[in-house]
Amino acid sequence: MLTVSFPDQTWLDDVGPIEGVNPIVWDPTQPPPGEDVEVFVAPYMASTAQIEPVGGKPSVRFVQLLSAGHDAALPVIPEGVALANAQGVHDAATSELAVALVLASQRGFDEFATAQAKGEWLPRHFRPGLADKRILLLGYGSVGSAIAARLAPFEVDMTAVASRARGGDDLVDRVHGIDELADLLPEQDIVVSVLPGTDATTGILGEEALSALADDALVVNVGRGPALDTQAALRHTGRLRFALDVTDPEPLPSDHPLWSEPGVIISPHTGGVTDAFRPRMVDLLRRQLRLLAVGEEPLNVVNPS
Amino acid sequence: MLTVSFPDQTWLDDVGPIEGVNPIVWDPTQPPPGEDVEVFVAPYMASTAQIEPVGGKPSVRFVQLLSAGHDAALPVIPEGVALANAQGVHDAATSELAVALVLASQRGFDEFATAQAKGEWLPRHFRPGLADKRILLLGYGSVGSAIAARLAPFEVDMTAVASRARGGDDLVDRVHGIDELADLLPEQDIVVSVLPGTDATTGILGEEALSALADDALVVNVGRGPALDTQAALRHTGRLRFALDVTDPEPLPSDHPLWSEPGVIISPHTGGVTDAFRPRMVDLLRRQLRLLAVGEEPLNVVNPS
Repeated sequence: MLTVSFPDQTWLDDVGPIEGVNPIVWDPTQPPPGEDVEVFVAPYMASTAQIEPVGGKPSVRFVQLLSAGHDAALPVIPEGVALANAQGVHDAATSELAVALVLASQRGFDEFATAQAKGEWLPRHFRPGLADKRILLLGYGSVGSAIAARLAPFEVDMTAVASRARGGDDLVDRVHGIDELADLLPEQDIVVSVLPGTDATTGILGEEALSALADDALVVNVGRGPALDTQAALRHTGRLRFALDVTDPEPLPSDHPLWSEPGVIISPHTGGVTDAFRPRMVDLLRRQLRLLAVGEEPLNVVNPS
Repeated sequence: MLTVSFPDQTWLDDVGPIEGVNPIVWDPTQPPPGEDVEVFVAPYMASTAQIEPVGGKPSVRFVQLLSAGHDAALPVIPEGVALANAQGVHDAATSELAVALVLASQRGFDEFATAQAKGEWLPRHFRPGLADKRILLLGYGSVGSAIAARLAPFEVDMTAVASRARGGDDLVDRVHGIDELADLLPEQDIVVSVLPGTDATTGILGEEALSALADDALVVNVGRGPALDTQAALRHTGRLRFALDVTDPEPLPSDHPLWSEPGVIISPHTGGVTDAFRPRMVDLLRRQLRLLAVGEEPLNVVNPS
């Protein structure tokens, strides 16, 4: 039997019985259980402090996160313990938020909200809309292609960019390499970044990239805040529009100028935070624990030995 | 040669030369031209007063509107003159607005806008989102199916309702008749009305229908305002959410209670008002004038003789 700890009873109940698995509850803010836990399922959005107790339990050989990001966990994972993230679980929610931010800005929902607060019915005014627009997806992994799938029926022209050029799929003819970005930007109406937070992505959307965009282009960020240089963005507000679920710094301080610049829409890092999360996470946990129980290769391991 | 009048020079320029067509400009707020105009292209969103001058020009035998709605024009069209609307031209813009309203409410953009105005980064809070939700499309003509095409990749369960039951298409298994609406409503998370303004549609979403909806369901209206009973809606705010591009009355007076009810998003009848309109309208005008020039059956005639 594989002893698996869940962060609370609801996860244990939702996952249900799995052959070969002995499920228990271990909330890492509490003392560790007496049992020899082999698989540790972390709390949602676990802090480093919530992963650290694994180090005091030598029986643990596998840690499963409930998030795709794993930067906070990796440094405290003991030697020889496998760490798996929840890649794919947030694709549906994050990609729909990207489309929501695109549509909200293209259709003027920021102006409608301001007018609504004043009880003001705005006069008819043509806005850009989404149909016929050219959209560049900056980052084309599982979230990027989920965004492309959702945008495809909107009569748009999509361009995908990833770290390296490669062949296309049923949504885009080809995937451009990041070295082609500068040449591609001037043609775009909309740029959507889903880039993760790494040294290589920091400031990719900086002064040079933003200057290359045409007037009234929209920049959307649902990846990590530092991919967009905030100071550069502030120099281009008014000329460009921005719709940001992630920011740098984050959370944005209440006196930050970005809050009140024209054409800026901010959502509070809410990309994956919908009802879609739990059923998809439960499904991944079931598949993962079945694989571990029978000794097969687990999914989404981010620190292969 | 068929003499065709355009409401201003930009339409004449955009449509360009068409074999067999003599294009001139006639702005109906100005005196009529000397030529014997046979086809009259109305101004965008023409009022009844802007169609009426056609009655003083017996040479006119065809009137082309730049809108799908034709209620204002029909009463002043002389006997024997054909009236054509612009059905289909607004499908892309209206359907994307419907999706925008759905996403804005499901993801909490109304709350984000209020928080942004105060410089407040809201704490993490699970919102319903769109994935896995059941959506009923009330009205399933060209706009309804354009909405279905755009919603399809969002991992949703769609139900279509039209005036009469019929077979499905590649988006929905079947189209339910309006007589089945009451039975279908309790299962829905989201109802999107694209119903036109007729006696039969007035108040379809009234006290009985709204009462049948589950708590926190969302009602979207991108059709015509009177399909939703405003007084009934006001009794259900707080329990239901609303995202409305059309209202009754419209425009909504500045002191109307709907502006400030919780969970209500209002856009100012902006369904078709995007950059997508002109190229699609130009395309329809070209096709229409080619047909008329060669004496073939025209498109979209709403008063067949």
